[in-house]
Amino acid sequence: MTIRLTPDHAWTMLERVRGTTPLIQCLTNTVVTNFTANVLLALGAAPAMVDVPAEAGPFARVASGVLVNLGTPHEEQRAGMREAVLGASATGTPWVLDPVAVGVLPVRTALAAELLDHRPTAVRGNASEVLALAGVGQGGRGVDAVDGPETALDAAKSLARQYGSILAVSGPTDIITDGTDVVRISNGHPNLTKVTGGGCALGAVTAAFLAVDDDKLAATAAATAVYTVAAEMAAEGVRGPGTFAVAFLDALTGINDEMICSRMNIS
Amino acid sequence: MTIRLTPDHAWTMLERVRGTTPLIQCLTNTVVTNFTANVLLALGAAPAMVDVPAEAGPFARVASGVLVNLGTPHEEQRAGMREAVLGASATGTPWVLDPVAVGVLPVRTALAAELLDHRPTAVRGNASEVLALAGVGQGGRGVDAVDGPETALDAAKSLARQYGSILAVSGPTDIITDGTDVVRISNGHPNLTKVTGGGCALGAVTAAFLAVDDDKLAATAAATAVYTVAAEMAAEGVRGPGTFAVAFLDALTGINDEMICSRMNIS
Amino acid sequence: MTIRLTPDHAWTMLERVRGTTPLIQCLTNTVVTNFTANVLLALGAAPAMVDVPAEAGPFARVASGVLVNLGTPHEEQRAGMREAVLGASATGTPWVLDPVAVGVLPVRTALAAELLDHRPTAVRGNASEVLALAGVGQGGRGVDAVDGPETALDAAKSLARQYGSILAVSGPTDIITDGTDVVRISNGHPNLTKVTGGGCALGAVTAAFLAVDDDKLAATAAATAVYTVAAEMAAEGVRGPGTFAVAFLDALTGINDEMICSRMNIS
Repeated sequence: MTIRLTPDHAWTMLERVRGTTPLIQCLTNTVVTNFTANVLLALGAAPAMVDVPAEAGPFARVASGVLVNLGTPHEEQRAGMREAVLGASATGTPWVLDPVAVGVLPVRTALAAELLDHRPTAVRGNASEVLALAGVGQGGRGVDAVDGPETALDAAKSLARQYGSILAVSGPTDIITDGTDVVRISNGHPNLTKVTGGGCALGAVTAAFLAVDDDKLAATAAATAVYTVAAEMAAEGVRGPGTFAVAFLDALTGINDEMICSRMNIS
Repeated sequence: MTIRLTPDHAWTMLERVRGTTPLIQCLTNTVVTNFTANVLLALGAAPAMVDVPAEAGPFARVASGVLVNLGTPHEEQRAGMREAVLGASATGTPWVLDPVAVGVLPVRTALAAELLDHRPTAVRGNASEVLALAGVGQGGRGVDAVDGPETALDAAKSLARQYGSILAVSGPTDIITDGTDVVRISNGHPNLTKVTGGGCALGAVTAAFLAVDDDKLAATAAATAVYTVAAEMAAEGVRGPGTFAVAFLDALTGINDEMICSRMNIS
Repeated sequence: MTIRLTPDHAWTMLERVRGTTPLIQCLTNTVVTNFTANVLLALGAAPAMVDVPAEAGPFARVASGVLVNLGTPHEEQRAGMREAVLGASATGTPWVLDPVAVGVLPVRTALAAELLDHRPTAVRGNASEVLALAGVGQGGRGVDAVDGPETALDAAKSLARQYGSILAVSGPTDIITDGTDVVRISNGHPNLTKVTGGGCALGAVTAAFLAVDDDKLAATAAATAVYTVAAEMAAEGVRGPGTFAVAFLDALTGINDEMICSRMNIS
């Protein structure tokens, strides 16, 4: 297995995001819309939360990337999600599926299975969600993973091969795989789990990186690396999750090549 | 009347929240979902905003506590709320009703009356809301109370006895009653009224404390005490409501037994 | 053309907002509800996000001002918006239309045209949105303007005359017109475009100023001036969009007559 992402490549992609301001359509849950939009803005991308039926489909055809996050899948938004996925698929727009809390909860679990058949460019979740998606687990405890990322490696590889997707499994060490190669990134900070949307916003950032690079595995890994290195930077000197969330947005704006090169911990 | 809560008891409950991470299901308004989730995370609990019909009911059966907040009661969420209340009632899961702005507004006022019949573990509101709930007032001015907490004491006691609920009336001095005993807590800071969700998130925190202690009056009082003492701590040295909200999340994470013992002002 | 707003007049209006706490009903998008409510609270107004059908109409009759923002126009909210506009019109309550991303997106574009016929007190948008509203452009790139404010001046004047509305076009230099007079305000900071809701919340602030002064052009200009001067103050010494958003809320609370007089740049 070769490392499929260098710090220079990650930095080049971030520069491209900042230079081209990809338009990222987010169909996401009501808890994290604000934070997700602010994360994309801080990074240098342009968020647009277009999720109304009759708009979501056409917009996905002009967006640079699409996030579909199943955190609060209300009926009208579910219709918007189906439209957006069809629109993105028709135009080859990269799209990311975040199967929040799938497993026991019936509405999102059925929807995740349906959307998966449309072959998302990438799937981002925690280990419990990935295991549930692969049909080999019952899901986590609400939105919390009860399993470590490595326990979901085989499930992630299997899903990746079956759907032609990149699978990204979040945890203390993040795992990203295309079904063959496996990239592990050991950056980040526990404070990221103390801010709601810490995981959800990474799905949007992943869509932004997929919009600027055709190497899907490298782009997904770069999104995770930049995001978690920024979290490390943000954690220095903060007094709790309030100051951390604020510093994290600043760090996404301030992060540069030197910080990525000196901190990125990939294997 | 005996004081029903010691600082040591409040601290013990907070330690239990932090040690057991109760899973708190929130069916709440679109304005405060993010802040409410972050408050629960900062405190040490696990938020889950599951409010979609067909999911809300089953989830309430496995959650540690449930919040039903009527701030923006859309039709689909109203169905989810009915499910969640039935689920919580069936399993004895503690649940908190926050009747935001009931009184003149017809949809939520009818829903509040309906849900009240299911005997919430606790009801949290301002004086105007509690008076309106008891049918002796017209409600406040939108979400603002126009009455002081003491004006709602009789209404709160009456509701508490009728529905077997703890009634918590927010204000400069908070009142918590089971219909017989009355606890008054004089902590907090006016900045808490300058951050949207300052009251709403307390409903979620109350659910978290009810999840870890069977003394319902003491648990509701402890939630208020810890929350308002954290607000006092946060208010020191801030420059306005922006820095206050950030410092408040940090304070909920940082608050310890010494701070609770030295500041808690109960009678 | 005479300048239609002095710094003293702007300050007087802000004092009136702080002194009378106008109740501002916001029917706005799911991304910015929280920030918008916090901006209104920091300013000294009282937010109420009442957008449920059967409540939105009656509430608009008692509110001091109403904001209708089309950012995420779900079906139920669209019904609430129609009610609110009828309620506001019936009682002469000032209301502001923010036609977010109209142009290509069909649902909101049709709704904007429909609501415009009810003659909003003010319309706030970026140049691309105002051009699209006037039928002379295709709208921007999602929520981003691709045109500068001056390109939309004729369209803004034309709309203002046709609907009896004040038109406010946001940009580096904001333009406010009643169809005859034109006020230009050159305050603000680019960081305001890096926080989601930076434009949307100004619509709510505009409703608050319209609630306290009958000179509609001056009130709309004063809202923009106070808002953008606060942004300038907030930008000093911050490290990125995270700290900026926090400092901005503090600045809205802290802004005083001296700051307005020394910084307001109007022509």
